[in-house]
Amino acid sequence: MTTPYRAPVRDQRFILHDVLNLAQYGDLPGFADADADTIDAILEEGGKFCEGVLAPLSHVGDVEGCVRDMDGNVKTPAGFKDAFKQMSEGGWTALSSDPEYGGQGLPHVLNLAFNEMVSAANMAFGMYPGLTLGAAAALHTGGSDEQKRLYLPKMISCQWGGTMNLTEPHCGTDLGLLRTKAVPQADGSYKITGQKIWISSGEHDMAENIIHLVIARIEGAPDGVKGISLFVVPKFLPDSDGNPGARNTLKCGGLEEKMGIHGNATCVMDYDEATGWLVGEENKGLKIMFIMMNEARLGVGLQGYALAEAAYQQSLGFARDRLQGRSLTGPKNPDGPADPIIVHPDVRRMLMDQKSFVEGARCFALWTALQGDLEEKASDPKVREKAGDYMALLTPVVKGYLTGKGFDMVSSGLQIHGGSGFTEEWGASQLLRDARITLIYEGTNGIQALDLVGRKLAMNGMRPIMSFFAELDAFVAAGGGESEQPFIAAVADCKAKLEEATNWLVENGLKNFDHAGAASHDYLQLFGLTCLTYMWAKMAKVSAAKIAAGDSDPIYANKIKTGVYFIERWVPEGAMHLAKVKTGADAMMALSAEEF
Amino acid sequence: MTTPYRAPVRDQRFILHDVLNLAQYGDLPGFADADADTIDAILEEGGKFCEGVLAPLSHVGDVEGCVRDMDGNVKTPAGFKDAFKQMSEGGWTALSSDPEYGGQGLPHVLNLAFNEMVSAANMAFGMYPGLTLGAAAALHTGGSDEQKRLYLPKMISCQWGGTMNLTEPHCGTDLGLLRTKAVPQADGSYKITGQKIWISSGEHDMAENIIHLVIARIEGAPDGVKGISLFVVPKFLPDSDGNPGARNTLKCGGLEEKMGIHGNATCVMDYDEATGWLVGEENKGLKIMFIMMNEARLGVGLQGYALAEAAYQQSLGFARDRLQGRSLTGPKNPDGPADPIIVHPDVRRMLMDQKSFVEGARCFALWTALQGDLEEKASDPKVREKAGDYMALLTPVVKGYLTGKGFDMVSSGLQIHGGSGFTEEWGASQLLRDARITLIYEGTNGIQALDLVGRKLAMNGMRPIMSFFAELDAFVAAGGGESEQPFIAAVADCKAKLEEATNWLVENGLKNFDHAGAASHDYLQLFGLTCLTYMWAKMAKVSAAKIAAGDSDPIYANKIKTGVYFIERWVPEGAMHLAKVKTGADAMMALSAEEF
Repeated sequence: MTTPYRAPVRDQRFILHDVLNLAQYGDLPGFADADADTIDAILEEGGKFCEGVLAPLSHVGDVEGCVRDMDGNVKTPAGFKDAFKQMSEGGWTALSSDPEYGGQGLPHVLNLAFNEMVSAANMAFGMYPGLTLGAAAALHTGGSDEQKRLYLPKMISCQWGGTMNLTEPHCGTDLGLLRTKAVPQADGSYKITGQKIWISSGEHDMAENIIHLVIARIEGAPDGVKGISLFVVPKFLPDSDGNPGARNTLKCGGLEEKMGIHGNATCVMDYDEATGWLVGEENKGLKIMFIMMNEARLGVGLQGYALAEAAYQQSLGFARDRLQGRSLTGPKNPDGPADPIIVHPDVRRMLMDQKSFVEGARCFALWTALQGDLEEKASDPKVREKAGDYMALLTPVVKGYLTGKGFDMVSSGLQIHGGSGFTEEWGASQLLRDARITLIYEGTNGIQALDLVGRKLAMNGMRPIMSFFAELDAFVAAGGGESEQPFIAAVADCKAKLEEATNWLVENGLKNFDHAGAASHDYLQLFGLTCLTYMWAKMAKVSAAKIAAGDSDPIYANKIKTGVYFIERWVPEGAMHLAKVKTGADAMMALSAEEF
Repeated sequence: MTTPYRAPVRDQRFILHDVLNLAQYGDLPGFADADADTIDAILEEGGKFCEGVLAPLSHVGDVEGCVRDMDGNVKTPAGFKDAFKQMSEGGWTALSSDPEYGGQGLPHVLNLAFNEMVSAANMAFGMYPGLTLGAAAALHTGGSDEQKRLYLPKMISCQWGGTMNLTEPHCGTDLGLLRTKAVPQADGSYKITGQKIWISSGEHDMAENIIHLVIARIEGAPDGVKGISLFVVPKFLPDSDGNPGARNTLKCGGLEEKMGIHGNATCVMDYDEATGWLVGEENKGLKIMFIMMNEARLGVGLQGYALAEAAYQQSLGFARDRLQGRSLTGPKNPDGPADPIIVHPDVRRMLMDQKSFVEGARCFALWTALQGDLEEKASDPKVREKAGDYMALLTPVVKGYLTGKGFDMVSSGLQIHGGSGFTEEWGASQLLRDARITLIYEGTNGIQALDLVGRKLAMNGMRPIMSFFAELDAFVAAGGGESEQPFIAAVADCKAKLEEATNWLVENGLKNFDHAGAASHDYLQLFGLTCLTYMWAKMAKVSAAKIAAGDSDPIYANKIKTGVYFIERWVPEGAMHLAKVKTGADAMMALSAEEF
């Protein structure tokens, strides 16, 4: 039956140690506590937790879903509550949080590696701690010392849950339309009234309190996005010692029926003069919310390739077991009634697509997460600046590219199962249904593309993209041995195309913003392809060096073979995206809305 | 809320009258009865039936699904039975069937146009008559006169249902592994014993009898595909007057839990010495089954674009209504709180992708269906031969390309809905879940690709593909006016690439069959793209002529604008597929099965 999930610890170790060489950052805060042995131990133990505790609950969560009673209480699927407790008590939620509030202060890049395994094992479950830590990050940045003292320790440990409340029925992407209002009270608190929808993890039975971060408009504030403030609105009002007290006047008004992530409670949240407190300054709520959002976007990109990894493992297991037909080049299992379907080239194509994507995506996600560490912790301001530029530039690429292609890879995993993939018993269909949300939430992929071409490219006089191009040029200029040549050529090819596309955007996008919008999707795709190609080149380089040095670990030869497949089979997509970028908006906008 | 389905009759009329010019075939059997007014009346009335009766049951079918009782009886969703009766009594199932058995003998191409609307309105429902008519087609070809007399009239009218029983738990694609056995009886009948799975429409409450076509191995027959015979195995054994009599010893042993098409009963069928009769000759069953299969494959390709049409309509309605954000080029709805999202280029991109795909695919499917009519009815043997070649060559392309791209377009439709697309209330998620099966059943798309490169290309000394190339060359050579030039250039470009890919296959695929397998997917994609480009060029040519002749119907200008988008935005995929074809199998097969 379904192949059980196995944590890809070996591959994560390859990236963290060999490619990113985390040992070089030993003098930065947190990294000193993360030597190779510690990292390996955390990945091993974390992997076991995900394999043994979370993965078995994924199907349960899909089938049972969440159930709301008439009072608005929500019951999570069987086993979720106990797993949440184990995750909290095991310290798994606090890996890279601030030690001042009970975190372990380890590198974010290590935390991300752990979170990949959580998402792959049980995405719907992982969203409960995930959103809690996102909310904690926003409070950490924007909250007062008192708020931090009161909320952060219990959120970081996931003794309490956390959520983000943005969307309203008439306002999703366009937050300026929001209607939820906040009325100042004499004691400095606010009464919050309004309805929020699609609130992931909005209500559940796993934590003793849930801390909602809610955007609302203070009475009399300006219209649009300039009048949005952020509030912390706890389910139970804590006393000054942090003990949950009176029940706040907010509740879950309903659960969404969704096509996937059934184990996560997606709530309609009704706030009826609920007590809340301002986080940060009046009318500056969106800025803080976007800190949370950016972290969440990286997390969603991670889900994108994590589910592709899960699909890869499932479909690989199926392809090795299922006997059907004979190899085109003669029987490979002559004593059996047929060959395993992994002998068929078209099955191989889908497996290699998945494998080469996932491994490249993992490297890209971890490399980007490392920029987050460097931005926060590096001593050299130039390093911090460059890392911050990269985080800003690459976040929409991680989110948009890894979820879009991740979904395609999950679909390929289902396809390998044939008819079994369409039935609910093998798990392939659940992955497809779960994965589909990653292209939508935390900003649709169209919004990611617009963020990339409309804001991130132009940032700081185009410093981030110029810095990225310079890094690619330097990599190409450094050259390499024979086995690295195809990789270097591919990096040069992708960089040239991405630069051409960028120049086209600069020339045309400013003249007519619709050109920028029309090009945005394919520009993001080309960008993502360039990043994964660069990652594969880095992986090939370090693998070639290991082989040259006599290291016989088979992972290195495997990397080069897999990378060659990526270069041959993915890089040709670049020219297509460039051609589409350069077609502009004319044909796209030629019909009036009525002519459709 | 959800935009109701509207039958695309105007576009179908454009294709049937303007592009295919069916009037020119007035001297062929059946076509004389299908003058333009008759065709239009059938499409109008058929469209109303699909809009008014079938479409409203689609969501009901998804939610209720089919229910099996302990005796193996299956209850279909509320309303299905009555709709099935209406469809039967309205004569809608008999449009293009043989008049000798109660059919109306109209062109298949017209029947296909009607079936598109059925699938778009309610795919799960459409499979009940669809499989019945597929089974009838197999009996019509392979059955004895007595079998035809007994079964065909009631199947063609859908008073009785029909199914095809191929798959067994251990044998899907590889039918040679089948174990179901047939034991000859003294009276000339056979006792059939075995288990079949994934039998669509296998058992239900809508027809007074269900006629199963079952492949099985007669005791002592050769192993593998050379020992497969076909049997007709009715649920109730008919007497010689065709009245259903004794219950046969077969039953539905279970229903599959599937991710979509919940309204269709996907059955495990248990045959326990069930009485059946041989269809055609012993050990020649597969040949007849493939007649049914080929017809079914065209039908699945049709589902692929039909669901994309449904998704297009849904997402277009949503994009016109949903107010969110402002146009990049200034407000388009200044009096409202925001602009409708159809103003945003990236939303346009997805709508234009859908529209230009669906209209091209519709033309391709109808053009191919017309080949079926010509193969059967043309008086000139050369015309029949060419049409037969085209049917053979293009069937895997219709199935593989239209379902793969169709699924992507359905996914784009969901994406336009944003978060609403992931909830079950808008219908976008149902379309995605329903559409996913089309890439799998009636032979996975990988099998279609292998059929194309492994069998259809080489058929009759490559006559079909050479004939197709000659047609494209002639089209290019004929030239056209200024507005047609980009289309003609695109046809020339696609044809050159497809020819290059074909030559590569001829040179390399025979040396190493794995090269052919490795190239097959992208070859099929390039083939499909070429076909849709050619269809767009034909549509542009006829539209330009209409405009030049002073016809002011806006459809003609709309076609040229939509076609230009297709040329700009889809044709660049060709070079990518060609590049992938030419990479061959080396990198794809470089890892051993254990190295994954």
